[in-house]
Amino acid sequence: MTLNPADDRLAARLPQGVLREVTSAYTEEARGLFTGQAGLVAAPRDSGEVAAILRVCAEAQVPIVPRGGGTGLVGGQVMPEGPAPLILSLERMNAIREIYPDENVILAEAGATVQQARDAAAGAGRQFPLSLASQGTAQIGGVLSTNAGGVNVLRYGNARALCLGIEAVLPSGEIMRDLKRLRKDNTGYDLRDLLIGAEGTLGIITAASLVMAPVPAESGVAMLVVESPDAALRLLSIAQARMAGGVSAFELISGVGLDFLQEHFPNLRQPFASRPKWVVLIEVGLPAGLVADEALEGLFMAGSEAGLVSDGVIAQSGQQAAELWNIREDIPHANRAVGAIASHDISLPLSEIAGFIRDAGAMLADRGDMRINCFGHLGDGNLHYNLFPAAGRTRAEYADIRSGLSFAVHEMVLARGGSFSAEHGVGRLKVADLERWGDPVRLAAMRAIKQALDPHGIMNPGAVLSCASR
Amino acid sequence: MTLNPADDRLAARLPQGVLREVTSAYTEEARGLFTGQAGLVAAPRDSGEVAAILRVCAEAQVPIVPRGGGTGLVGGQVMPEGPAPLILSLERMNAIREIYPDENVILAEAGATVQQARDAAAGAGRQFPLSLASQGTAQIGGVLSTNAGGVNVLRYGNARALCLGIEAVLPSGEIMRDLKRLRKDNTGYDLRDLLIGAEGTLGIITAASLVMAPVPAESGVAMLVVESPDAALRLLSIAQARMAGGVSAFELISGVGLDFLQEHFPNLRQPFASRPKWVVLIEVGLPAGLVADEALEGLFMAGSEAGLVSDGVIAQSGQQAAELWNIREDIPHANRAVGAIASHDISLPLSEIAGFIRDAGAMLADRGDMRINCFGHLGDGNLHYNLFPAAGRTRAEYADIRSGLSFAVHEMVLARGGSFSAEHGVGRLKVADLERWGDPVRLAAMRAIKQALDPHGIMNPGAVLSCASR
Repeated sequence: MTLNPADDRLAARLPQGVLREVTSAYTEEARGLFTGQAGLVAAPRDSGEVAAILRVCAEAQVPIVPRGGGTGLVGGQVMPEGPAPLILSLERMNAIREIYPDENVILAEAGATVQQARDAAAGAGRQFPLSLASQGTAQIGGVLSTNAGGVNVLRYGNARALCLGIEAVLPSGEIMRDLKRLRKDNTGYDLRDLLIGAEGTLGIITAASLVMAPVPAESGVAMLVVESPDAALRLLSIAQARMAGGVSAFELISGVGLDFLQEHFPNLRQPFASRPKWVVLIEVGLPAGLVADEALEGLFMAGSEAGLVSDGVIAQSGQQAAELWNIREDIPHANRAVGAIASHDISLPLSEIAGFIRDAGAMLADRGDMRINCFGHLGDGNLHYNLFPAAGRTRAEYADIRSGLSFAVHEMVLARGGSFSAEHGVGRLKVADLERWGDPVRLAAMRAIKQALDPHGIMNPGAVLSCASR
Repeated sequence: MTLNPADDRLAARLPQGVLREVTSAYTEEARGLFTGQAGLVAAPRDSGEVAAILRVCAEAQVPIVPRGGGTGLVGGQVMPEGPAPLILSLERMNAIREIYPDENVILAEAGATVQQARDAAAGAGRQFPLSLASQGTAQIGGVLSTNAGGVNVLRYGNARALCLGIEAVLPSGEIMRDLKRLRKDNTGYDLRDLLIGAEGTLGIITAASLVMAPVPAESGVAMLVVESPDAALRLLSIAQARMAGGVSAFELISGVGLDFLQEHFPNLRQPFASRPKWVVLIEVGLPAGLVADEALEGLFMAGSEAGLVSDGVIAQSGQQAAELWNIREDIPHANRAVGAIASHDISLPLSEIAGFIRDAGAMLADRGDMRINCFGHLGDGNLHYNLFPAAGRTRAEYADIRSGLSFAVHEMVLARGGSFSAEHGVGRLKVADLERWGDPVRLAAMRAIKQALDPHGIMNPGAVLSCASR
């Protein structure tokens, strides 16, 4: 029987007390590109209630949109088209269930925020190393479902690498209990990694056992001026050879980004008197017996001798370190203030980055007068390659060429073996891109798996895979 | 049309020149528990030929057993029952296709040995960190298909964590091209990790892009005497806090293992005059600016002060380090010489290990007079928990209680949240175990995926999932 969420018979079948008021908070997404339909909002209290909701929706053929913190950037958390959905919010399943300092493991429910997990780990003298700008709002279920990245991927891996086990409700309405705290478990297909990054289209992650890491005995932060992205990459190589895995973050910032900060955050103190073309922000975490400042100084010297580094500042206190990080973290805010024509969350093989930045810059210069703010997680090969109007011009003036620009950028990325979605996922924004550029055999296998696990197509329909293509 | 491999019509359809003589090398497995059927042996030269073979076999409904180095320990590489198979050996696809030192990436074909990849990385001033006793024979396709572990998982992860992308032939006979060299790529379902660890039941991995790591500036090896597994774990915790991720290996060795070595390798020099109850072998790789020996000495002191370490030796040369490692690596050989009643490749949450070793020892003492050699990758929670006849007795005397012992050991492992297969996989040996102890919802999802990707059931039938249960 097909029911509409507006039909009281649907609500009557749901577990008691799960329904929430439908507000715009549940139908908006971070970039304002999509507006979700308002069906019902259900906020279950445990995985049993999640399972009951899925069973009801499967029977009534009501689509389900899972919702975490809602910070995703590709529209995976809203359903603007098709039949009105039930929005399944994990907000009430927000417990840190257990913490095992001796195992470096933390068990969190899907609705706990990343910050909650970080705080719980810190309380136990450990760290939960997933760190991203939205961590105060982003939820564990969301960062797993999108395999989120952030600034510490270089050292600790993305969300997938930080997850040992999951509890999940499959589209059948059954609970898969695989919440193990094991580093090694070779007992069949890796369904954990299949659900991670599936953006809620294959099931609902309800809890996870997550990896904590020891807090390094010594840590430090520096911002170094480099001549080019190529110099930055050679500096990274030197850093990794010297630090034996001790490089926790290696972020690229362009002079354009520093200009944007200057323009929109004039009170933010910038460390260099004359505006550099490129800087890198490096954080290291080192063993006992080393002094982080000295290690960073040694890197600065080695980089200078190699002709890679022309200036630099090493944080002398926790506050200075935070100030350097603020420069990096405020760039997305400055970007929003300027207003991008187009944003690209791309990744490239490391040895293709310098050539891409050179060629893409030349290609775009031919297409119009604009500013490029290229920044991001250089150590992972992940750039946020964003295009902005030339000074004095508006986004609207670029509306006609916008999609052509993105297409051309992505084509160049793909020609160099890169990806059109490094850390944000596919959501609804990039479904057509995946269909265009994804390997067709891989896509066919994805569709076969979707059909096998979610034969009624109720799980976040239209995300990752288009409904029509199944 | 169903064809028998003996039928000339099948051979006539295969790509020219792929057939090899059927020898016992293709029908044996490392432990001698299974003997495979001899159908045909095909050794394709490229992924196009692999695809052609799969298409022919799908049409003729001939099962395929993929074969790498044949070093697997659970019978995944032989098909003792059912229709005679085509054995697909990757031995001719053994090229290191490309090496990218600046990216820390190496592209290897499935038939290249682990040692080849290690040598190629070393030649480029890097390391390929997968390290296991069988690395001279084990092939890249095999270690990925089984998600192999080894001694460096603690620092660098298992085979899955070392793979960025794969080229694979799916059961449909189509080539999935996903050989990316990217640290981040969130464009759809994680089919790479699904094929990794699927033991050839969902397709054939034909090539992979693999992660290399910088060689640490400083490295060192020590063997320390500890009173108990619990003391060993507390020492690990101290080591990790001091070394900031610099612990590359942390292996547990029992006094029983040292006795076995003494008995069967009397020429192997053991470092301690009186036989310890337990020792740990620790390897560290550290940043420039530290001296590994001093760091290990510092750990020894800290461990002594905490009452955890009573004696120890720190290797003073590369040769001494190799000698200490030989002690660890020769234990499996000594075990074979003694002849095990039963072997268990188990993993446990770290905080459950000490309790398990205590309780399992007590339980087994009640069941008969035997020797327990418990050793392995303690840092990963992965123990090889092997049972041997009491001195002067033979395996045959334990034949009646053998399976009961294993069942009881596994039950205790599972009750503590552990796994009955940490790094060896399921193969054919542990299919019944997976059916008994695996989460039924997870198993059902595995079967649905198997059915979706391999509807004819030709890919390594009987491995991981029983044929009957699909």
